[in-house]
Amino acid sequence: MNGHFITFEGGEGAGKTTILQTLSEKLQKQGFEVIATREPGGIEISEQIRKVILDPQNTKMEERTEALLYAAARRQHLVEKVIPALEQGKIVLCDRFIDSSLAYQGHARGLGIDEVFAINQFAIKDCMPTLTLFFDIAPKKGLERIASNKERERNRLDLENLAFHERVYEGYQKLIGKFPNRISTINADQSLENVERDAMARIAAYLKK
Amino acid sequence: MNGHFITFEGGEGAGKTTILQTLSEKLQKQGFEVIATREPGGIEISEQIRKVILDPQNTKMEERTEALLYAAARRQHLVEKVIPALEQGKIVLCDRFIDSSLAYQGHARGLGIDEVFAINQFAIKDCMPTLTLFFDIAPKKGLERIASNKERERNRLDLENLAFHERVYEGYQKLIGKFPNRISTINADQSLENVERDAMARIAAYLKK
Repeated sequence: MNGHFITFEGGEGAGKTTILQTLSEKLQKQGFEVIATREPGGIEISEQIRKVILDPQNTKMEERTEALLYAAARRQHLVEKVIPALEQGKIVLCDRFIDSSLAYQGHARGLGIDEVFAINQFAIKDCMPTLTLFFDIAPKKGLERIASNKERERNRLDLENLAFHERVYEGYQKLIGKFPNRISTINADQSLENVERDAMARIAAYLKK
Repeated sequence: MNGHFITFEGGEGAGKTTILQTLSEKLQKQGFEVIATREPGGIEISEQIRKVILDPQNTKMEERTEALLYAAARRQHLVEKVIPALEQGKIVLCDRFIDSSLAYQGHARGLGIDEVFAINQFAIKDCMPTLTLFFDIAPKKGLERIASNKERERNRLDLENLAFHERVYEGYQKLIGKFPNRISTINADQSLENVERDAMARIAAYLKK
């Protein structure tokens, strides 16, 4: 595959979703073919799976069931959307991917990073991102940003307490230790413009290699 | 857990579904508390997952996505139905379980027994069956039995060709080699009465231990 698979990771309020859109446009203006996506990415089967995960009636959903469903939705999104784009030589920018499952479910929910990694390896096979940007902001600050943004839609994870988000942060730190070559930390405790600039510089350096 | 988790496995046309019902009734008459079940077992979340797997519109369903969905449905059925029954000291008779995924998807579909085992280990944790009856019949004979039974509803797997069912059989043979203490082979190439008798004798011997 000739393309580049770049994922954006981090806790809530790190700004990664906004920055992903901006960088996608900038890279396109530079002549790159870019796809900006996030799971389930409009893939019909993945959307159906996500509906099962998010159905408010499904209060009995067990955490391992949930982790397997996320891995299933990931697989289908990868096969139908990400891999074909990579095969066409495109840059794929994906908002959250395997590291989110590892940090949120593996570490913060306590299922174990290695265990969640195993089922995700089955799902992604060898299709790991080649570059991952971790947008680094203290969980407390990230949550304050979210709280001050009235337009932002609240999801189930935004409502977890600070201790949970601190465990997520701790999980990401473990992942950085585990994948030092793939994961690059971007200081997200700056103005959005500066975070964008740093992220763009990191991608540019990666593309030059 | 004080209960007994007994699974029934085998290719198509081995008679295991019919025999499971009969043995369940016989064991109950002997005073045992028995639950006869099969995935998704009426568990709402597992039924929803199964609907995604079986939706005829989902022609793009990739085999790894499917394997993960089966594991997710298995987890929820286990947590909501099987484990509570085992904790109450009941005998759980389950028509197909992990070995079906290993034989059909792991071996016959070529995903690899060890790989499919890994995601199922995540799903079942330590809750493996303590006894598994493998109903042994040559695939060709099993398919002939199905063909002569006009009342039987055909499913997607019945329509696979003989070569596929022979790979499934081969997969089960590998599993018997892998789990010789757990899996007990019952000769299913006899009259239903005799197969029932042999299966009942095997369960009785197991319960006496």
